[in-house]
Amino acid sequence: MMSELKTSKRILMGPGPSDVHPKVLQAMATPLIGHLDPQFVQLMDEVKQMVQQTFMTKNELSFVVSAPGSAGMETCFVNLLEPGDEVIICVNGVFGGRMVAIAERCGAIVHKVESPWGSIITRDQVKYALEKCKKPKLLAIVHAETSTGVLQPLQEISELVHNAGALMVVDAVTSYCGMPLKVDEWNIDAVYTGTQKCLSAPPGLSPISFSKAAVNVLENRKTPVQSWFMDLNLVKDYWSGSKRAYHHTAPVSSIFALHQALRLVLEEGLENRYKRHQIVHKVLVSKLEGLGFKFLVDPSYRLPNLNSVFLPEGNDEGVIRKKLLDTYNIEVGGGLGAFAGKIWRIGIMGESCTLNHVNMLVGALEDMKEFKH
Amino acid sequence: MMSELKTSKRILMGPGPSDVHPKVLQAMATPLIGHLDPQFVQLMDEVKQMVQQTFMTKNELSFVVSAPGSAGMETCFVNLLEPGDEVIICVNGVFGGRMVAIAERCGAIVHKVESPWGSIITRDQVKYALEKCKKPKLLAIVHAETSTGVLQPLQEISELVHNAGALMVVDAVTSYCGMPLKVDEWNIDAVYTGTQKCLSAPPGLSPISFSKAAVNVLENRKTPVQSWFMDLNLVKDYWSGSKRAYHHTAPVSSIFALHQALRLVLEEGLENRYKRHQIVHKVLVSKLEGLGFKFLVDPSYRLPNLNSVFLPEGNDEGVIRKKLLDTYNIEVGGGLGAFAGKIWRIGIMGESCTLNHVNMLVGALEDMKEFKH
Repeated sequence: MMSELKTSKRILMGPGPSDVHPKVLQAMATPLIGHLDPQFVQLMDEVKQMVQQTFMTKNELSFVVSAPGSAGMETCFVNLLEPGDEVIICVNGVFGGRMVAIAERCGAIVHKVESPWGSIITRDQVKYALEKCKKPKLLAIVHAETSTGVLQPLQEISELVHNAGALMVVDAVTSYCGMPLKVDEWNIDAVYTGTQKCLSAPPGLSPISFSKAAVNVLENRKTPVQSWFMDLNLVKDYWSGSKRAYHHTAPVSSIFALHQALRLVLEEGLENRYKRHQIVHKVLVSKLEGLGFKFLVDPSYRLPNLNSVFLPEGNDEGVIRKKLLDTYNIEVGGGLGAFAGKIWRIGIMGESCTLNHVNMLVGALEDMKEFKH
Repeated sequence: MMSELKTSKRILMGPGPSDVHPKVLQAMATPLIGHLDPQFVQLMDEVKQMVQQTFMTKNELSFVVSAPGSAGMETCFVNLLEPGDEVIICVNGVFGGRMVAIAERCGAIVHKVESPWGSIITRDQVKYALEKCKKPKLLAIVHAETSTGVLQPLQEISELVHNAGALMVVDAVTSYCGMPLKVDEWNIDAVYTGTQKCLSAPPGLSPISFSKAAVNVLENRKTPVQSWFMDLNLVKDYWSGSKRAYHHTAPVSSIFALHQALRLVLEEGLENRYKRHQIVHKVLVSKLEGLGFKFLVDPSYRLPNLNSVFLPEGNDEGVIRKKLLDTYNIEVGGGLGAFAGKIWRIGIMGESCTLNHVNMLVGALEDMKEFKH
């Protein structure tokens, strides 16, 4: 027989999941109700409203994909793309690369706009790409690159994209509920995110939103959406309208938790929450620099909630990271791709974004004899 | 502000989700650990082993799709099919129809074998279809049709399928952990299920298993798998092997709960669990027939855990079902498709499979003045 589940009480300061509020954990443990129960249908309506509020959008097609952020990403592409479509995808980290892989599997012709990992995509690069491309259907870009800690300015790019008659698709997995993300004001046509970052809910769901222009593209497709599970023509009848037609069995407990997590965000207020992430970030920067850490990203494009740092010289990142986890129960993230073994990614997201978290991490490093600073 | 989550304590006797054991709910509320934490990696290994045990298979490629059963279904088809492949799909209810829709979106040429809703697919029908089809790559069939309550014999069909050189794909969403499902002995090549039926975990995950022959097809594809999220070439490196390469963020809390639910199944023992479902089913049949209910499905092909019944004449199923839910907090399922408004689907699955459940339902019906019997 397998032994009982036994986990340590971790302090989650990696790239997600982040710590989860006890009220959200409690919501996860709520006895289930049916996925077509009138009480659940009402709950879905409330979740949808709060997804709209947190995305700062009035988009009618705003709801939650019953799978993690990567499935939210794929949902956007499979619904908007048809074979032969030309698309522009900005790549300056892992998640831009993932968007390319997905768009290619939709049969799209992908034009990449690339910047070195740790840098932003510039307005000029986008302008040039849009001019070069015959008929771009969409441009996709990552708002907050979880692999590097770069915050991408969006508004200036959105303007260029719409002038070229294309749709603007945004990966907001790491920015959502941690920094401004103004879907309507910035004219974003399709946006997806995850629940396990600054929202501080368990991973497994992906809130998304489509503008009228994106819905129009969806409704005028010539070919069927290649995924049945992700086909928004079907899913939207489950999430809204009068039919509430059965599509798949919604992950009831995770929606309970999402409802509670969204309530906590709105109770704090989006502006207050953004401010909190900035304040804690500043303290973290100052203390980490005091220990000899160097930031990968230029201060003007640095994410407040995901901090990519080089360790002070002479440290083996793997050894220190393991000791942090084993002795102090603190998780920080390692690097991905070219940065594997080179950087740490320190998350201060949602419930993990407190001065206490900073002090636990910094204190542990100061105490640790293996850590050279 | 949205008000706090408020749900009634339902008794779940529909087609799923079923009632969830308090220990499983408690597992859902466990504080999170990272999805790459060594403790989580070990947990994934344990879940994988228990998935093998419950599927009665030694298949190395046995694990859990991070999305509901419908995504498990799609995972099987997108990995095994390439455009132009010929497939045979058996349709005698909603879920056979769903498999057709998915296979067509993979570009497959689909040959349907159809039986009326409420009947099984016969050996002769399959034999004829295999003879007629030039080069069938796979035959897909539903073990337990949730829309009708039919239990499909599989072993005799599997033999025909393999003699024709095709793969056998099985939907085991409603049978898993509630009745015998012998993946190795019956020579099933790809099987998927859900967590919210006889396993009695919350919905949102889909355990699946691929035989060596299925893995061979996967590894010799000429075209990429059309879904990135569901591509088992990528997912399997996250779930097994030495790399444990990051693919997507696993739904940590749901895996905690799945671990606990699988433990409870194995603690009870598969045979005991199957027997319990049979025993409670017999009592339910006798009491329902005593009230004037008529079963849709012939006793020889009747699912023990999902009972499709016509109400005694003179009853409006919608009115009675609503009163059951509103006054007694008991959920039973309505009919789907052609059976909408005509039948009930009464689930006695997993934690909802007790004599007390039967008595609560029957007692409520007897007490209800609106119910004519």
